[in-house]
Order: sequence, then C-alpha cells, then structure tokens
Amino acid sequence: MNKNLNELFEFLAIPTISAQKEHKGDMAKACDWLKNKLQKMKFKVRVMTTGGHPVVYAQNLSAGKNKPTVLIYGHYDVQSPDPLKEWKSDPFKPEVRNGNIYGRGTADDKGQLYTWIAALEEILAKNRKVPANIKFLIEGEEEVGSVNIDRFIMKNLKLLKADICVISDSHCLSETIPLICYGVRGLVYVELKIKTMPKDVHSGLYGGNIYNPANILAQVIAQLKNDKHKVLIPGFYNSVRNLTKFELNKLAKFPFREKEVISETGSKTVVGEAEYPVQVRAGARPTLDVNGIWGGYTAEGPKTIIPSEATAKISMRLVPNQNSKKILGLFQKFVKRIMPKGVNFEIKVLSTGEPAVMNIESKYYRAAEKAYKKVFKKDPLYELSGGSIPITATLKSLLGIDSIMMGYGLPDDGLHSPNEKLSVSMFEKGIKTNREFLTSLDS
Amino acid sequence: MNKNLNELFEFLAIPTISAQKEHKGDMAKACDWLKNKLQKMKFKVRVMTTGGHPVVYAQNLSAGKNKPTVLIYGHYDVQSPDPLKEWKSDPFKPEVRNGNIYGRGTADDKGQLYTWIAALEEILAKNRKVPANIKFLIEGEEEVGSVNIDRFIMKNLKLLKADICVISDSHCLSETIPLICYGVRGLVYVELKIKTMPKDVHSGLYGGNIYNPANILAQVIAQLKNDKHKVLIPGFYNSVRNLTKFELNKLAKFPFREKEVISETGSKTVVGEAEYPVQVRAGARPTLDVNGIWGGYTAEGPKTIIPSEATAKISMRLVPNQNSKKILGLFQKFVKRIMPKGVNFEIKVLSTGEPAVMNIESKYYRAAEKAYKKVFKKDPLYELSGGSIPITATLKSLLGIDSIMMGYGLPDDGLHSPNEKLSVSMFEKGIKTNREFLTSLDS
Repeated sequence: MNKNLNELFEFLAIPTISAQKEHKGDMAKACDWLKNKLQKMKFKVRVMTTGGHPVVYAQNLSAGKNKPTVLIYGHYDVQSPDPLKEWKSDPFKPEVRNGNIYGRGTADDKGQLYTWIAALEEILAKNRKVPANIKFLIEGEEEVGSVNIDRFIMKNLKLLKADICVISDSHCLSETIPLICYGVRGLVYVELKIKTMPKDVHSGLYGGNIYNPANILAQVIAQLKNDKHKVLIPGFYNSVRNLTKFELNKLAKFPFREKEVISETGSKTVVGEAEYPVQVRAGARPTLDVNGIWGGYTAEGPKTIIPSEATAKISMRLVPNQNSKKILGLFQKFVKRIMPKGVNFEIKVLSTGEPAVMNIESKYYRAAEKAYKKVFKKDPLYELSGGSIPITATLKSLLGIDSIMMGYGLPDDGLHSPNEKLSVSMFEKGIKTNREFLTSLDS
Repeated sequence: MNKNLNELFEFLAIPTISAQKEHKGDMAKACDWLKNKLQKMKFKVRVMTTGGHPVVYAQNLSAGKNKPTVLIYGHYDVQSPDPLKEWKSDPFKPEVRNGNIYGRGTADDKGQLYTWIAALEEILAKNRKVPANIKFLIEGEEEVGSVNIDRFIMKNLKLLKADICVISDSHCLSETIPLICYGVRGLVYVELKIKTMPKDVHSGLYGGNIYNPANILAQVIAQLKNDKHKVLIPGFYNSVRNLTKFELNKLAKFPFREKEVISETGSKTVVGEAEYPVQVRAGARPTLDVNGIWGGYTAEGPKTIIPSEATAKISMRLVPNQNSKKILGLFQKFVKRIMPKGVNFEIKVLSTGEPAVMNIESKYYRAAEKAYKKVFKKDPLYELSGGSIPITATLKSLLGIDSIMMGYGLPDDGLHSPNEKLSVSMFEKGIKTNREFLTSLDS
C-alpha cells in the first residue's frame, strides 16, 4: 500500500463521531494527528477551541504577498456508523476491496480532505515551496450542523482572509465525468401550527359552526403556490438573480433532465415552472414544499371529530440574492394576511440558511476547470446544488470569498450509510487535480 | 327501593359488553331476562338470531286492528366500562347516589329502554290491556355499529310493520327542559390518499421538479369548501330539503346558539353559512370536515424531504334528501376533476349513513308533545341532531315509518365514560311520559 493510503488509514481509524460525547478524546486525537501531519509540512498549526469540538487551523504563507491565498475547508468529524451489523468491514478499520476504500469518513470527508494534504506534500517534496499561500480550516462539527463555525469565522476574520476557498466534500458524476458545484440554495424551514380549540370535538354536533384547523391549514397551504408552480407570497421572487449566459451554457450540459428525475425519485411526472429546464429548476430557482403535515385522527377507520389543531412543516429553498430573514418576514406577513379572522396560529422557525452562488468566470474557476481537464481529460460539468451547504454562504458573506466545490466522491459512496467508500482511483485523481490546481496558481 | 329500580338493577347487573367475546353468555342471559319479563306482561317473545348477537323481538297486538302499532326500539348491549379504576362504584353493581343511578348502561340504554317496559306494565296493571299494539325491537349490537340490524329488518319487514317508532336513547336538556330529537344527519366518510413516489425524497435535490403530495392534498381540500363555508362539490346542495315554517319555529326555541358553541367547544369564534342560525347549521345543513390529515415528516425539528404520500380523512354530514351514494359519487367525480394530471390517488370509503327527518306535524309527534307537557309542565324543545343515528334512517327507508327520539338522559350522563348515570327523577318522568303517550293513542 502506498504512503498516502497508509496515512489516510491512520486518520480514518480514529472514530471521530462528533454527535457522541464518548468520542471527545477521539476528536482531540484527530486534531493531534492533523497537527503533527501539517507541522511536518512546515505549516504553523493551531488547534483552536470553539463552543464545541475544536477547529484545526494551519497556514503556510511562504509563497509571499504577491501570490494568492487559498483557504482549504474540510472536516475531521464523521457520522455514527450505525447500524453496525450492516457493515461488511469494521467502519474504523479501513480496508481496500475492489478498488474502493471502505470505512466511515472515507468520502465524507477525511479521504477527500486528505487529497489536499497529499497534493501539497507532493508539491513541497518536488518544489520545496508552496505555490500559493495556504490556509486550512478543518472543522469538527460538520456532521452536527456546524453549530459553532459561523461564530468562529466571525471571530477570526483576519486569520482566515483568503482569495478563494476550495472544498472537497461532494462528488463527480462518475469516474470519468468531473463536476464542479458552484452554488447552493438557502433555506427557510418553519412549522405552522393552527390551533382553535383545547381538544377535538364531535364533528356531527359542531360541524358547520366552527373553524376546522385542518381545513384552514389546507386553505393556507393552497394559497402559497399556484398550479403553475409559482410561489404566491408577494415579493418572494423580487431578489432572484437571473442566470448569466455563461452559466446557462454550462448548466445545459449537466445531465439532470426529466429522465433522471423520474428514475431517481420514482415520480411518474416531472413538473415545475414551465419556462425553466429541469437542471435550472433544480438549483437556480426557489421552491416551496410541505415537508410534513398532521392533525386530528390518523389511525384506522372513521372517527367523527373536528381536530383541535393541525400543523405543517413548510420549507422554502432560496437562491441568490434572496435573503432568509427577508423571505421569512414575507412568509409570516402573508400567512397572517390570508389566515381567517379569529384563527390562532403560530409560526416556529426550525432552520434558516443563506443561498450562495460563485462567480464561475473567475480565474480560480478557470484554473480548477483546467486542472480537471488535465487529469480527467474532460471539461468538468457545472452544477447548482439544490441542497444547502451553509459554510459556502458564510464564507461568502463574512470573508467575501467564493468557494469551489471540487468533490472527488461518486454518487454511490453511501455517505451517512453503512459501507461508506471512496474509490481509490478517484482519490488519486483528486490528489492530482488539486496538485494541478494549486501549481497553476504559481504564475 | 321501588319495584322498577329493583328490576332495572337486575338488568343492569348483566355485563352485556357486545364488543367482547367473553360476554357472549351474558348477552344470552340478558335476552332471557327480557324474554321472561315481557312474557309476564303477556307479550309473545322471540329471541332471534342474527349474524352477531341476538335481537329480542316481542309483540302484544291485543289492542286490535283499529288501533295504531308502536314499535319500541332499544338496545340491551353496553360499552366496555374501561378504565375501571375511574369508577366510584362497580359498573355492574348499580347503586343510587345523590338521586342518580350509577352503572354501565343506566342511560345508554338499559335504563331508558326500561322506561317503556315499566310504562306498559303500569298501564296493564291498571287497564288490563295495551292502549295500542306494541312491538319491541331490542338490539344487542348498537355499541358495535349495529352491523346486523339492517339485514335483520329487511328480513322481517312484515313482523316489524308499525305506524310509528319510539326510541329512548337520547337526552333532555335538563330535568325541566324536555327535548325531542326529530332528525339525524347522514354521513359519507372517506379517506383520500395521494401517492406520487415509492419513498420520500430530498426536497433540495428534487424540489421544484416533482409533485409534492402534501401540497396537492392541501390544494384539493381547499377546493372542497369556500371561505363562505359552502361546499363546492357541484350538485352537493341539489337535494337539500328546505325547513318548513313549523320546524323553523320549533328549532328557533332550541338554546344552541353562539354562546353554547363557544362554551362547549372552547372555540373562540363561531362561523358557518351566514344565512342560517347556529341551531339550523347544527343539524339541518350539510357540512364537510377534515377529520384527520397526515403525511411526510412529523417528528421534531426540520427534515428536508418531499413526502411520497399524504392522506386525509374527510367526512360529509348529509341532510334530507341528500343520499349518501349520490354524494359519494359527486365527491369522487369532483376530486378526479380537480386532481392535477399524473397524480395518483385513492378514495377509500370508511362509512356511510343516510340522513332522516321526521314529520313533526304528525299525530304521533303531537301526542308525544302533549305527554311531555303533562309530565314536565313544559312544551318539549325540538332538535335536529348533528350526529347520525342510522337506525332511524333504516326504519324510514325500509319500513316507511318515522321515529320519535324521546330521550330521558341528561347531557352530563357520561355515556361511554366512567360513572355513567341516569337521574332517578328523569327515569320516573320517562315512565310517566311514556305512559301518557301510549295511553293517548287509545282513542
């Protein structure tokens, strides 16, 4: 086994499950491991405390002031490996089978983070210096919602100052189809509860004389979106950025079309805003969805009651330049307006996150594209992720820098699942692509 | 203790819980008890088998062909007394405390049924003959949905032929405010399930490109009723009978107004079709209510999914001359029409029942009114029940006869609850009122 795999296996063997208190010692052990590794590479390393698990910060600024500074973000914590019995090998005794490294954290994110360490090590061995100034920001709480990272960044703006951030925590489409994710959607996730009575009442005795919270909830939800799939909250689309031609051209190549939606979801129909293609709707348009709904009698058979209350979880995916606070305000105002008089309701905010989109015409994106092309012999595809990666929005708003999501996983890596893996060849291609990318900045 | 209470206590002591198999012997014992009792009163009695618990049928037709025939309906089965520990006395060892008889079945329905037996016994003791031809139809499955009674009636149309049915299985408003219920609403109760995918999917990845069953369900429900509380299913109101002036006058006296709705339900607002008063909306107008709704993620916190399915229990209360089959057909047709193209749904029928309203201008209603007035010194109020008592609709459609619901319970009797009771004085007034009613038919 080569040196890189050998070292990665040491890192993977530390069970850094951030959600479980008993692994606090393992978290410290992983920080030490990173510290030792990066110190050997002439990085100044600090293990910095937060409200939760520590952050490992490392820098090597020897490239000098006329070179750009690259911030490399990653995380050393992992998900719990449960259910253990479904693993074919010990999640914390990594092994290679059929060209894949199996183990918890291989793809998410230790293996991918390590592609940057290995790339830099190779560059240093060859050139004796870094091609750009390098800063590492390695978090220990990504799997528990990155609850302390925003505050950490806010407190260390100067320390973290950089020109571009790179993150390898996503995936390519296949071994031969590289992919850069250049934007993420934001989120406003609320719980809307309508409560009109202290308890359920007989629908025969009182039906026709009182509000039914479940009917009212349905009416409210129905008024949030029309049958053309447009959100009807006034002002909702006001700040939505139009895509540039450059982006539209890049996105058009992304193979996420009706066929993919149908085969991946099992839905028989693909529907959405008619004027946008599927891949644009997937990441570049805001949405509103009911994620859950409940109220009244839900067991078997008939029960003739009017429920005392009904609740829905409703989330909105945001795109640049929508702002979660503003959209939440518009939602609250609109719901208040359409709620029938005399109906008690409550809106609880469960989660928010800002959208972010990167300038894919920048020299860093061009450099990444070239690096992929050199290693994969193919231009990377570009994707606007439908999901949310809040760190990218935070870096954009607090540090003013874009991120390039250069993932080397594959869609079937099984993140958060048993038998998580990372392809050995993708791992190696990742190291090479990173090396190409970093080296190209030295010019 | 007087003879009537003494005998009633024997009847109450038999634990005739129709829902529990181990009480099959008790059901037979109660049938025997009724048989012996009525035979002593010169009734011809038959304990008749059904698909479930037997029916006790008894007749005394000695009044002759020029006298009317009265069918007395009641039931000898009771609800389970659970939770037992909340009873202050044994549910099947009846006792009198503070002027009330406590025990399972006191008000529902053995005690009330017994008011007819006692009334007839007194008449026979005095006059040596019945004032009208009398038939008893005493069911043993009322508490389990009367699942066999329709078929029983259909098979015994000739035997059950009568001019009027009387039922004591409801209540007066208070010890001094008698009440006749003269109509019941019908019911169509369905479960509407929308299913678009085999499993929940990520709302970030697929939101904006597929149907969300919870949103669609809300849209469908919202289209079933408008904000004026009108059901929007085309044809829904076509057969709704207008109330007569006579009825409107009677109903106007019924003290079920905004105040009562608010105090009984805890709802802060009373709303409904503006052109009808509360007591008319409560029983004489059809309604549509969601009784339960569920779909997607309903536990704590946010989970960003699009549910694969969403379901609602929806019921419609019907009034004469709406027909449950016809209304169900209209509902199915309308939902099919408004369902977005390509969305799979299923409508499961959970329960149906026909509405019924009686002719309160008939001589039997006048006789009942006089009997109440004589005993209670007050005209009875008239009510159209919002709930469903299917036997009255069955008797109307199969035998062509009206029922008079002459209940002697009180609103706080605790039917189906621990410490069920029947007021001793209401029991006695019931016997007297029944005696007056029956005697008045002998003219």
